[in-house]
Amino acid sequence: MTAKRLRTIEELGEFGLIDHLTSGFTCRQESTKLGVGDDAAVIDHGTYYQVITTDLLLEGVHFDLVYTPMKHLGYKAVVVNLSDVYAMNAAPRQITVSLGISGKFSVEALEAFYSGVKLACERYNVDMVGGDTSGSMTGLVITVTALGTALKEELTLRSGAKANQLICVTGDLGAAYMGLKILEREKQLHAQDPEIQPELTEYNYVLERFLKPEARIEILLTLKEAGIRPGAMIDISDGLSSELLHICKASGYGCQVYDDRIPIADETVSAAAEFNMEPLVSALHGGEDYELLFTVPLSDYDKITAIDGISVIGNMTEKNGKALLVGGDGSAIPLQAQGWSHTLSSSK
Amino acid sequence: MTAKRLRTIEELGEFGLIDHLTSGFTCRQESTKLGVGDDAAVIDHGTYYQVITTDLLLEGVHFDLVYTPMKHLGYKAVVVNLSDVYAMNAAPRQITVSLGISGKFSVEALEAFYSGVKLACERYNVDMVGGDTSGSMTGLVITVTALGTALKEELTLRSGAKANQLICVTGDLGAAYMGLKILEREKQLHAQDPEIQPELTEYNYVLERFLKPEARIEILLTLKEAGIRPGAMIDISDGLSSELLHICKASGYGCQVYDDRIPIADETVSAAAEFNMEPLVSALHGGEDYELLFTVPLSDYDKITAIDGISVIGNMTEKNGKALLVGGDGSAIPLQAQGWSHTLSSSK
Repeated sequence: MTAKRLRTIEELGEFGLIDHLTSGFTCRQESTKLGVGDDAAVIDHGTYYQVITTDLLLEGVHFDLVYTPMKHLGYKAVVVNLSDVYAMNAAPRQITVSLGISGKFSVEALEAFYSGVKLACERYNVDMVGGDTSGSMTGLVITVTALGTALKEELTLRSGAKANQLICVTGDLGAAYMGLKILEREKQLHAQDPEIQPELTEYNYVLERFLKPEARIEILLTLKEAGIRPGAMIDISDGLSSELLHICKASGYGCQVYDDRIPIADETVSAAAEFNMEPLVSALHGGEDYELLFTVPLSDYDKITAIDGISVIGNMTEKNGKALLVGGDGSAIPLQAQGWSHTLSSSK
Repeated sequence: MTAKRLRTIEELGEFGLIDHLTSGFTCRQESTKLGVGDDAAVIDHGTYYQVITTDLLLEGVHFDLVYTPMKHLGYKAVVVNLSDVYAMNAAPRQITVSLGISGKFSVEALEAFYSGVKLACERYNVDMVGGDTSGSMTGLVITVTALGTALKEELTLRSGAKANQLICVTGDLGAAYMGLKILEREKQLHAQDPEIQPELTEYNYVLERFLKPEARIEILLTLKEAGIRPGAMIDISDGLSSELLHICKASGYGCQVYDDRIPIADETVSAAAEFNMEPLVSALHGGEDYELLFTVPLSDYDKITAIDGISVIGNMTEKNGKALLVGGDGSAIPLQAQGWSHTLSSSK
């Protein structure tokens, strides 16, 4: 008799695991419009939709308190959830914040965390309406849930992309990951020689992108004012590649993205050079940029290119087509997701 | 110059800490009807209210995987949140479930967890609509958020108690804590001598109350059918004493509760005897019973006492009165909360 070998989580991967574990669930409430599988779930309230999204942030996996100020952490914990709400073309309204805290935290440290939460609530006009606080035997645990509302005709899903639509991104990509790399390097140097005082001014941009990201509060209004109705939308939390694959899979269309159109800031390029790294790799796989990735009809080309801070990086292709990255020489290689950003085996 | 001493969390206590940290927050969204401070937050959707509540469950603090089957854990994680929804006199509709998991878990263990979640969804007619899955460097982390709806005239808050209203509880109290005590004892015995096979059949009732609690799905309907409109309501997660104090504080009235009226099961009494413990202590402070505690008008005395499974244990008293426990001899002592059930320094 042989013992049945238990499957490991790595064998399935994050998205495979979620698909597998949630596959047996059915929805029975009339108000449930959309369950697992987009940036947020959708609840029908008659004249409008409500979206709900939640994120778990764990010390040692998603953040390192050695270089993350508590106030920034509180701010970021809120913003990453609001980003998911915006990615549904919805307006965030309420959040809940839950904390698991070990005895090592002072009240002052928690005050700093909540001052960051409060700042984000003010900046994004949302109410903190609840949460849970508990002791933790191990590290700091943070869960934020965000609720928002969307007009029914404006809700935008990952599945809304159509053939030939333009693929657009806001801002620039890859900076947050370079910020993380800089912080990790300084942490190591400091561990080797505590006398070293890091000089980080020249890295301000990439550091801020990592430590204090902003959600794209203004872009939905800008698109609306320009009369542009996005097809599919997703926020870039796991890297451009992974998010493009989500849109392709959900909508059933292929895509081609031109590597020289992907917006990368000068500061990201110079930080990447210090690590002998291709900045494009950071943009494709770095994650945590919290920019929005969306598609718009080809006929909106003139309108969309007239808007500052939005780059057209490619287009959707045919039904069941491949997701391709096209180089300057015209060569096309398949886009690949780099697994999850916060794996079970390593902290990114 | 003296360094400013940082305050410890223990100095404030759980509820003091939450009050302190959330005191600077204001609500600006028109739809936010109620924020922090009840079993759930309340969002106004025009013709009805939506309630939202969230719980964080941490390995080593809220559960011990040595004696907690993963399926039961999934079931309980959902039920404890639904209990908060019922305590608002609302019907649960949707949940989200987030997990932080370390590499030690097999896919089969997670399947067992989700089979418990699924069972609870079926039993209580709710939809699992989302969540987050992440690696964890330490123990298992579970966050469940539950959403429900209530008719506007039926929403029941902690603050709704009035002078002379009857205080009622469902079911019996203190059993879950005795179940925990039994499991902790067997764990110790097993650690001393792994050959010992525990014989737990006689403890089935208290063990099930701890490992697989149920939320009071039927009671709200029963009250409605009987034409009884509860004043205040709360679920008993931290022990009767603590919950009574919440109602007194929120409503601004005192209360008196008769110790010989507090319902305690025979199985709880005999388990308590094994530990030389007063069963009343378990009922007052044990927690995790997930029964409902509520008040009803004095004029409903005949109606409420005619319902099986509900005990009238006392009454609200005057404005700003004390919260008192009255003994069989007529002596009255102030009710006291035993701090939080899951403290920062010890696992209950």
